[in-house]
Amino acid sequence: MVVKEYVTYNEVHKLCQDAAPQILQDFQPQLMIAIGGGGYVPARILRSFLKTPGSPNIPMQGIGLSLYEQLPPTHNSASDTPGQIEEAGTKVTRTQWLDFTSLGEIENLVGKRILIVDEVDDTRTTLEYAVKELEKDVEAASQKLGYKGEETVFSIFVLHNKNKEKKGTLPAYMMNNNRYLAARTVEDVWICYPWEATDIDAHDAMAAKQAVQ
Amino acid sequence: MVVKEYVTYNEVHKLCQDAAPQILQDFQPQLMIAIGGGGYVPARILRSFLKTPGSPNIPMQGIGLSLYEQLPPTHNSASDTPGQIEEAGTKVTRTQWLDFTSLGEIENLVGKRILIVDEVDDTRTTLEYAVKELEKDVEAASQKLGYKGEETVFSIFVLHNKNKEKKGTLPAYMMNNNRYLAARTVEDVWICYPWEATDIDAHDAMAAKQAVQ
Repeated sequence: MVVKEYVTYNEVHKLCQDAAPQILQDFQPQLMIAIGGGGYVPARILRSFLKTPGSPNIPMQGIGLSLYEQLPPTHNSASDTPGQIEEAGTKVTRTQWLDFTSLGEIENLVGKRILIVDEVDDTRTTLEYAVKELEKDVEAASQKLGYKGEETVFSIFVLHNKNKEKKGTLPAYMMNNNRYLAARTVEDVWICYPWEATDIDAHDAMAAKQAVQ
Repeated sequence: MVVKEYVTYNEVHKLCQDAAPQILQDFQPQLMIAIGGGGYVPARILRSFLKTPGSPNIPMQGIGLSLYEQLPPTHNSASDTPGQIEEAGTKVTRTQWLDFTSLGEIENLVGKRILIVDEVDDTRTTLEYAVKELEKDVEAASQKLGYKGEETVFSIFVLHNKNKEKKGTLPAYMMNNNRYLAARTVEDVWICYPWEATDIDAHDAMAAKQAVQ
């Protein structure tokens, strides 16, 4: 049986609000990258709480990443191995990348503190892809601009991290130096986010029922 | 006195849900463009309701547009005119544009039906900018690819349109052919969106109080 966890908009709002002080203190982001579609809502909310009086909003760009479930092999070939099946759900497709021409004063990623925002860390495949590709961009820009020794620091914020075996990995420095913040760590449940609800009142009722259990 | 209108997340959700059938029928979008930051939340919600069973999500990209209030002239110059003051708030800054390299099967905007999503149509300045710049992209791509006579159709969805004199204008075809949909038309009030609320429970209480008035 698949266990479902219902999350309301206001809970998402509060998860972002509660995380903001730690993000400001530990990550001090100069640029936010929202992984769309799921990261759009938490990123927009978080931006409100990361704004400090008298300063402009932290610049934000969206990227689009979709995780496509690769079909498992059809089992009609002698070459089929369990390893192939393990690869299911590991193909990431870019539907949008950063716009380096509109970064304004940020100019490029080199030497910057960059916060990546998504709604959920499930298999970690998407986050691994995002960090690896962003690191490639940093490397390319560093070479082009002749920068040396500039430390670019990525950090991650997700609403939920699922406590399960991950297919993707993140750089050790992120995990060891508190560059990864999940507002909640949950078991391997089906998280029902409000923006996917076809009946938001019923969704909220399920969330309320859950809360008193 | 500035009149404030409080909008809850669930109201935003329902505004998107209620608008979706008309958008699907009239606009039949092939690409969604979310104007960030404010358009991120409605765009993500709307995408859920625009998905038809058996079909993939409608592709979505974000753009970032900020409307900066230009300071009015300091009134210490003989050349000051009321006209300059009228120009306040009309400078749009791009913080992100489309990523044409990741459009996949869409390839480019030429001949496509494109839905632009934002939270509010206030002075219309941002929407005018978005449409004009997108039209330039279409023109450039058409010339480059040698396309002729392909009809590219933009449509707009906003949660709220403020009933006020607009500084920006949209192409006549959009307004005359139902290519513009505002879920609600409101007076020139201060709309308090939930993602800007520092106390979401108090925000919801204000919205509830409003509703019974």
